[in-house]
Amino acid sequence: MNTYTFSGVKNFLIFYFMILASSFLIAQDNTPPFAIIIHGGAGSMQRGSLPDNLEKLYRKTMQEALQKGYEMLDHGASAVDVVAATIKIMEDSPLFNAGKGAVFTAEGKNELDASIMDGANLNAGAVAGVTRIKNPIMAARQVMMQSPNVLLSGDGANHFAEEQGLDMVNNHYFYTKRSWESLQRVKAAEKEKQKNMHDKGSHLNWFDTKSGTVGCVALDRKGNIAAGTSTGGLTNKSHGRIGDSPIIGAGTYADDNTCGISCTGQGEYFIRLAIAYRITAMMAFANISMADAMKMVIHQHLEKLGGVGGAIGLDYQGNIAVEFNTPSMFRAYHRAGESAHVLIYADE
Amino acid sequence: MNTYTFSGVKNFLIFYFMILASSFLIAQDNTPPFAIIIHGGAGSMQRGSLPDNLEKLYRKTMQEALQKGYEMLDHGASAVDVVAATIKIMEDSPLFNAGKGAVFTAEGKNELDASIMDGANLNAGAVAGVTRIKNPIMAARQVMMQSPNVLLSGDGANHFAEEQGLDMVNNHYFYTKRSWESLQRVKAAEKEKQKNMHDKGSHLNWFDTKSGTVGCVALDRKGNIAAGTSTGGLTNKSHGRIGDSPIIGAGTYADDNTCGISCTGQGEYFIRLAIAYRITAMMAFANISMADAMKMVIHQHLEKLGGVGGAIGLDYQGNIAVEFNTPSMFRAYHRAGESAHVLIYADE
Repeated sequence: MNTYTFSGVKNFLIFYFMILASSFLIAQDNTPPFAIIIHGGAGSMQRGSLPDNLEKLYRKTMQEALQKGYEMLDHGASAVDVVAATIKIMEDSPLFNAGKGAVFTAEGKNELDASIMDGANLNAGAVAGVTRIKNPIMAARQVMMQSPNVLLSGDGANHFAEEQGLDMVNNHYFYTKRSWESLQRVKAAEKEKQKNMHDKGSHLNWFDTKSGTVGCVALDRKGNIAAGTSTGGLTNKSHGRIGDSPIIGAGTYADDNTCGISCTGQGEYFIRLAIAYRITAMMAFANISMADAMKMVIHQHLEKLGGVGGAIGLDYQGNIAVEFNTPSMFRAYHRAGESAHVLIYADE
Repeated sequence: MNTYTFSGVKNFLIFYFMILASSFLIAQDNTPPFAIIIHGGAGSMQRGSLPDNLEKLYRKTMQEALQKGYEMLDHGASAVDVVAATIKIMEDSPLFNAGKGAVFTAEGKNELDASIMDGANLNAGAVAGVTRIKNPIMAARQVMMQSPNVLLSGDGANHFAEEQGLDMVNNHYFYTKRSWESLQRVKAAEKEKQKNMHDKGSHLNWFDTKSGTVGCVALDRKGNIAAGTSTGGLTNKSHGRIGDSPIIGAGTYADDNTCGISCTGQGEYFIRLAIAYRITAMMAFANISMADAMKMVIHQHLEKLGGVGGAIGLDYQGNIAVEFNTPSMFRAYHRAGESAHVLIYADE
């Protein structure tokens, strides 16, 4: 009887513990599956074409940026803060064509573009053609949070960032030997080839230029999606040329009801097709999944026009999608409770 | 018998003539119903608030621009040429906030934006923040036709236009007493009021500033649609601020398979909602008519965010749509074989 009573109490305790544990697990299930996805640009890298140590460095830097973003999300940071902080890490790395390491214009300067969008309220901010802001993504964030504007360009954007107390640098800060040599190669190639100026977006040797636009989409614990993109544009681009990265709807879009998107590639095609918003529109108006919409947009709509590039996305349920029609795209993602993935080639 | 024969021949001739005439009418029915629609901006004008002579001048100028475009279409001109020529007339008029008569930035300068898109091939061109180009719409057209870019900004765009041999002017050319006084009024009002900087697009006294963005959509005899938009932006805008007018997908979009759209209003909202492309996306992906899509976008999506403005559109069948949530919108349209309409107030 003693034993029975003890056994009864034990069984009750076990039962009670199971109920508690189930409630806890169910509660955990109800918290949004926070997630992050980043990219470092669609490119022409074939397996083996990247020196081993450089490939390792790319993977390490992407891993670091991803981990930073994931940890922030895990600690309850907002999607907007995570996108800005994650992109900042890639801007600060000379490996990517954003911030330090940005490509050069035809005139041998660096003109940078960035944008960010908050899917909770469709707020957005962007800067284009900035030359003195160390982290253009931070300026885009300030435009969104602290100004009545969405898009500021050139000197006006430089001044605004300075007023906002952001880190300012001399244009020479962005210099890397690699990007400078890329400009010389493209200029030399241009002399030899006749460029068909009428083919929209067909910038000479896009594959030879350093494509390395960076982007990030995050879904935070509150179910809020944000997306951002940052770039130096195209090697040898015209002074004043604005690509898709700072254009809300083209290079970046986020809506908590559908998904967040960041693009990379031949910007002119992405503007003409309004690619980032197009994917969300197909979800919203035709009830197509993000993955299917992105496939159609990259492999049908973009390819039909002859464009090259890719996109990353994260939808309101935490689903992840990546599509590109190039041999490689630097990309990495991490969903709550799953393992992190850092990928470069199409066959990974 | 003679009479009979004569009557038979006559009947045969009448019959033959009827067949010929029917074929001709059927052939005419098969030619696309060419059409043109223009706008001179959504605004706050209530009936009676505009002096009679000024109202007459607005109607006369819109009528002239419309007629020029209609005649060009009638003579077989392409939609792109018609859009550029029609917008040029409105840019050259000091009545509208585009070209001559553009509003002033906070720094007392004029920075102009324009874009154009060809629905046949989704080619597009745009300029932003230009200061020395007499007709920004012509520069947008040259960017589309003669460069690998879609969007050029600031000095880079000025230089490109100069290289292309377009008419260049001193920034002072754009001055009108009316726009200058508008800047002084807004600056005075700004001193008195505290501006909520966080409310995206809520530029102080939008209704008081001269909204007068111009736009045009044309459907030519070949069934090709083009759309264009040109503006000076917002009175007292920040140096470097870019609104929706030069953003393909926001202020302008054209696709021969759906429609052409040109927008006017608080640009920041139009960028955040990708309004011009949104209307075509609803047609393409949800099979909603242009009229219904435009109604939803202007009166639901835009209003939900608190935005103000309007849009004009022309679809592949020659249907016309105009929607705005302001008391007035300068607008005019003319479909082949019908009469021309020139309208200002919401109740017209």
